Amino acid sequence: MTENEGLSITELARRVNGKVLGDPAYLIYGVSGVSESTAETITFAETEQYLSEALKSKAGAVIVPDGFTAKGKNMIVVKKPRLAFARIAAVFAPNVFYRPGIDPTSTIADSVVIGENVSIHPYVVIDEGAEIADHVILAPGVYIGAGVKVGESSILHPGVVVEYDTVIGKKVMIHSGTVIGSDGYGFVTDQDGHHKIPQLGKVIIEDDVEIGANVTIDRGTSGPTVIGRGTKTDNLIQLAHNVQIGEENLLVAQVGIAGSSKTGRRVTLGGKTGVVGHLEIGDNTTVASASVITKDTPSGVFYSGSPAQDHKKELREQAARRKMPQLLKRISKLEKRIGELEKKLN
Amino acid sequence: MTENEGLSITELARRVNGKVLGDPAYLIYGVSGVSESTAETITFAETEQYLSEALKSKAGAVIVPDGFTAKGKNMIVVKKPRLAFARIAAVFAPNVFYRPGIDPTSTIADSVVIGENVSIHPYVVIDEGAEIADHVILAPGVYIGAGVKVGESSILHPGVVVEYDTVIGKKVMIHSGTVIGSDGYGFVTDQDGHHKIPQLGKVIIEDDVEIGANVTIDRGTSGPTVIGRGTKTDNLIQLAHNVQIGEENLLVAQVGIAGSSKTGRRVTLGGKTGVVGHLEIGDNTTVASASVITKDTPSGVFYSGSPAQDHKKELREQAARRKMPQLLKRISKLEKRIGELEKKLN
Amino acid sequence: MTENEGLSITELARRVNGKVLGDPAYLIYGVSGVSESTAETITFAETEQYLSEALKSKAGAVIVPDGFTAKGKNMIVVKKPRLAFARIAAVFAPNVFYRPGIDPTSTIADSVVIGENVSIHPYVVIDEGAEIADHVILAPGVYIGAGVKVGESSILHPGVVVEYDTVIGKKVMIHSGTVIGSDGYGFVTDQDGHHKIPQLGKVIIEDDVEIGANVTIDRGTSGPTVIGRGTKTDNLIQLAHNVQIGEENLLVAQVGIAGSSKTGRRVTLGGKTGVVGHLEIGDNTTVASASVITKDTPSGVFYSGSPAQDHKKELREQAARRKMPQLLKRISKLEKRIGELEKKLN
Repeated sequence: MTENEGLSITELARRVNGKVLGDPAYLIYGVSGVSESTAETITFAETEQYLSEALKSKAGAVIVPDGFTAKGKNMIVVKKPRLAFARIAAVFAPNVFYRPGIDPTSTIADSVVIGENVSIHPYVVIDEGAEIADHVILAPGVYIGAGVKVGESSILHPGVVVEYDTVIGKKVMIHSGTVIGSDGYGFVTDQDGHHKIPQLGKVIIEDDVEIGANVTIDRGTSGPTVIGRGTKTDNLIQLAHNVQIGEENLLVAQVGIAGSSKTGRRVTLGGKTGVVGHLEIGDNTTVASASVITKDTPSGVFYSGSPAQDHKKELREQAARRKMPQLLKRISKLEKRIGELEKKLN
Repeated sequence: MTENEGLSITELARRVNGKVLGDPAYLIYGVSGVSESTAETITFAETEQYLSEALKSKAGAVIVPDGFTAKGKNMIVVKKPRLAFARIAAVFAPNVFYRPGIDPTSTIADSVVIGENVSIHPYVVIDEGAEIADHVILAPGVYIGAGVKVGESSILHPGVVVEYDTVIGKKVMIHSGTVIGSDGYGFVTDQDGHHKIPQLGKVIIEDDVEIGANVTIDRGTSGPTVIGRGTKTDNLIQLAHNVQIGEENLLVAQVGIAGSSKTGRRVTLGGKTGVVGHLEIGDNTTVASASVITKDTPSGVFYSGSPAQDHKKELREQAARRKMPQLLKRISKLEKRIGELEKKLN
Repeated sequence: MTENEGLSITELARRVNGKVLGDPAYLIYGVSGVSESTAETITFAETEQYLSEALKSKAGAVIVPDGFTAKGKNMIVVKKPRLAFARIAAVFAPNVFYRPGIDPTSTIADSVVIGENVSIHPYVVIDEGAEIADHVILAPGVYIGAGVKVGESSILHPGVVVEYDTVIGKKVMIHSGTVIGSDGYGFVTDQDGHHKIPQLGKVIIEDDVEIGANVTIDRGTSGPTVIGRGTKTDNLIQLAHNVQIGEENLLVAQVGIAGSSKTGRRVTLGGKTGVVGHLEIGDNTTVASASVITKDTPSGVFYSGSPAQDHKKELREQAARRKMPQLLKRISKLEKRIGELEKKLN
């Protein structure tokens, strides 16, 4: 599956604006971490230590930062080796669902508008009024609801469900099993039970967003739920109705954000973190794994704990908690000593 | 998608037993929150403050409680504005998967019994002996196992999987990607490994239940797993084998309940809350987000924390925890002061 | 669905190497817990107390351990009654997706290699170069990516997605909605945003593994993600790129394990437990529900809490935490008493 024709080091260097040291015609067939490298792969090194490991490895070539040199290995010299590595890896990555055409087993409503060069796989369903832009890939079993728009070059993996009126931007990737546009969780309760508040908003997913597998993103109650440009989410995440995720957020696996909460730009939420409803999380805020955010947070902070607080405070509190059992003993001892002093003095 | 013909205020008032103030012939085309309202939408207000905001808004009409009056806006006066709003929203909500008929691409076993006016979408599979009642909607790619019963007017969203022998009541809504009737997690372990205990019970979902997206509800080991009438669950919830959820529970996203635990009537579990196995949670109990229930809980309590306890106690404990680092200093100081006193006295 | 022809007690005893007491020709039609037993079912008892309950029950027969005897019931005497019960339950368990043949609505690429006696259900898609071994069952809507290998007698429930190059061993069971081989969560960040690091590794699932419903297992970045032989996972679990799960682990629902972490043999992680990245968890370690593992753990320990620590220490800390509010009062009192003593002495 991952087989491919090799590319010369010159060709790879051209794609990342790098300089070649060593044999420019040497052929590379894939990328690897240092420990799995072979004569056919290229790896990367960002520090002297990694460079020395890479030099000892079997790698056919190494991507290194400006100023690094060494003999005995083919090298590509760039400003940002890690980024160059990601780009070269992308060259070798299989475009697994690229298969231009519309599979005859798919079911597409008459009013659907479909662009050029799309790949529509078996058992895809596209309902009335949807618009599928150029170069979109819809993998097997994807469901696209009525009125949904999918922007250019977006890729939806197998079994993704996109309910009606959702707007998906360009170059969006959505992994398998994810559900976009399910109803928000809203009810009016009286003595007869919980009465559903119809969820009439939509979901907007901006350009360059990547969403993990088996994620759920609910439609808004009346306004939209929004995922900002360049945000990347991991798997099994819950984003409730009217949540607004800012640009370039990172949401790690199993995060849950309750209704109407809003994150700023470049927010990072660690795995399993929860955010209660109607909060604002400031720009550039980072939250450690398994935290619970219960209040608005300012910009640029690092929070942790449940309820979350400044990470340094949380660490001090944790350390103190660990001493609690001895503390109880120290206090009992103090009480005894004071009792004895009091006896003496009275 | 959400376009529709307008309805007069008189007509809307009729549907919620309300009185009209203002222009009875005014046409409304949808509902909205106050801040998104337009001349074509109706909103609602439950307090003086919200009424004053609604009056200043662009809303074409406002639903208000008995006794409220004001000029310059069309109004519908009712006992419970929020509930009336939910009902009017339902009038405008699109019935997206209503499409009576059986899609020719579906695969339905010969022995399946199908009622009147069902909507069976593309790529639905219904196995032997299943019974699909009147007005049921099975969206694209739904799987219905052998012997499953789906009650009147229930709606299953795309990709829902219902494994064999499950019983689903009337007016049940199940969101996309949810799995009902997967095997419970049960093994006998010896030196050779973990040996599966076949899970031979079923799942029973009573009337008026709504289940979120990408939820998992396991079948019982021998008796059933039961979701009580009128219960509503959010997304990504795990209900293990032989769990028994009472009537009209609210289970918020990412809740997990371990095997054989049982909840009373009107229990609310906040998002991410966990319940260990074989517990009983009393009627009308509310549990805050991200709590862990490790013991039976009485009726009518409000619990939080991990392990969960009475919420007021938890808040006091949290406050005390926040003071821990200073406390350590206070104790050290006390020890020093006592030491000095002891020196003086001896 | 669960109807079947009865089997004699002799026949059942033969399958579990047991001895018969009572009527060897008595017919049994299914298994049950003691409380749901009928004249047609067999149950089991491991202790004197359960035996006495089983004797009073309606059960047609009871599986008992060596040395137990009693009159008035048919019995099968074995070394391990629970294990024998699981095996007899398996005899009566319906093999719901066993339906040899290839459904004409499935879509199978020309280069796919398919073994004997497979059951391929409607709307299954199998991409180029995949290999499906003998006796494999692919339930409706399963997706098998290019180059995937599925070993003998494995069963994939409806809607399972297996992305390219995944290797699945023999006798593996994967429950509905689970996604294997989605991209790991890896990006390089600079001022322009988060750039995807293509995920070029694969997922390897060894023999005798069972995976729950709506689980996500990401492919490795370059090396593989591995699930060791005999491991059983519950539902809604996240296993990140390059995670290595050892043999015979038990991972309970909603567990999440971050990238590159590794577990030993026979590790048990309670429900909702989180493990941060790049850790090693020793053999035979057990972690209580809702814990967060933040450091390597030694072998054979029982951990709990967040951050997790030795369970006994955690219990002492919990107990101390519960006393915190009173503690604050005791300390204030001490300060006052000392102040008074100091006044007297100065």
